Amino acid sequence: MAFKALLFDVFGTVVDWRGSIIAEGEAFGRERGIDMDWAAFADGWRAKYQPAMERVREGRTGWVKLDDLHHANLMELLDELVISGLSAEDIDHWNKVWHRLNPWPDTVVGLTRLKRKHILATLSNGNVALIVNMAKYARLPWDAVLGAEVAGHYKPQPEAYLKTAAFLSLLPGECLMIAAHNNDLVAAGGCGLGTAFVRRPMEYGPTQDFDMEPENDYDYVADDFLDLASQLGC
Amino acid sequence: MAFKALLFDVFGTVVDWRGSIIAEGEAFGRERGIDMDWAAFADGWRAKYQPAMERVREGRTGWVKLDDLHHANLMELLDELVISGLSAEDIDHWNKVWHRLNPWPDTVVGLTRLKRKHILATLSNGNVALIVNMAKYARLPWDAVLGAEVAGHYKPQPEAYLKTAAFLSLLPGECLMIAAHNNDLVAAGGCGLGTAFVRRPMEYGPTQDFDMEPENDYDYVADDFLDLASQLGC
Repeated sequence: MAFKALLFDVFGTVVDWRGSIIAEGEAFGRERGIDMDWAAFADGWRAKYQPAMERVREGRTGWVKLDDLHHANLMELLDELVISGLSAEDIDHWNKVWHRLNPWPDTVVGLTRLKRKHILATLSNGNVALIVNMAKYARLPWDAVLGAEVAGHYKPQPEAYLKTAAFLSLLPGECLMIAAHNNDLVAAGGCGLGTAFVRRPMEYGPTQDFDMEPENDYDYVADDFLDLASQLGC
Repeated sequence: MAFKALLFDVFGTVVDWRGSIIAEGEAFGRERGIDMDWAAFADGWRAKYQPAMERVREGRTGWVKLDDLHHANLMELLDELVISGLSAEDIDHWNKVWHRLNPWPDTVVGLTRLKRKHILATLSNGNVALIVNMAKYARLPWDAVLGAEVAGHYKPQPEAYLKTAAFLSLLPGECLMIAAHNNDLVAAGGCGLGTAFVRRPMEYGPTQDFDMEPENDYDYVADDFLDLASQLGC
């Protein structure tokens, strides 16, 4: 089994969104004198992620890029948490925290090894600008930024996977989907892509109790990107 | 004037398509005992490029990716030149010569300098797989592969430029189009993008007599990517 392209889920699989938001929140809170449970802030924001995309998937709205969904979700959250007094610039800066997420410790070295023998492309629900800016920030060596926005469909809709493979002129079976989330891999596998589960047991913090282990028979199961690179002979 | 993204025309501007095809043709001819004017072969193939895209632009066919246009054009050309006896594999390999084009001598060093301060994205009529494979082959450090296929429109249609900027969440005026071709820059400028003309006087060989000089008032005019990098302070 030789895959030509490796397609990566990004949030949680490649970068530590929760830890990055907490760290930036704590620094911001100290600077502005805002006392806040930043873990709850991060989790509350992320909890609005799937429902917002679901409105797009169901066709209740036309295409809305993730930056704009994040913005609407942030406005709701600030309201719920009774946080006021932020300028429009503050809010825009905060919304772009998703462009400034830190990679897991193994990410950059692992991707660099994997890139030697494969095309590395993103297959994220993040929009192109978000993923491109994050790559500049975190030095992620993608060969192509594909996924939801260029496909016009949010994962786990099949078009997100199939159109990404088609843009690379590859058959689904020539692509390996890499994710820390069982539902993403089930959807990718259903489209005929190969599947690799990478354990990210701290994505949702120390009390995470889901996506701890592979729940299906995937092609690969790895502890991190270095382990995956070794298994793929890179 | 500070541009956030540099958008590159690729064929002729970044890579020497004509010289690369001639070199590969000469090697192929020696191996197979085919005596052929490979410069005429390259020029004949390229002459069919604009008319083929024009059929797509005019809506006489749905979207056809450039690899498939190249393939149809190659079959026509082989017929015209009375070249027969090539296997389907030979023809597929030949068609993918566009994925194996050599950069100009200044390209990789210049792009590496420009990448320090800018997002580098392709805005080519080449399809995603073609540009991604070429980047792996020629070590071109793109941050994103955008352009005609993801926009669903071939240059110089405005959508190709405007949708590429929109995928980057940038205004047209935050993007600088870089090309060795006046018509590409006129179209980009008409959409509000900045414009940089880079001289590639040997693109069409030693007798080239067009696109030798800028024919309009562009934001930058450069002798190569090193000169452009210096002018942009990189």
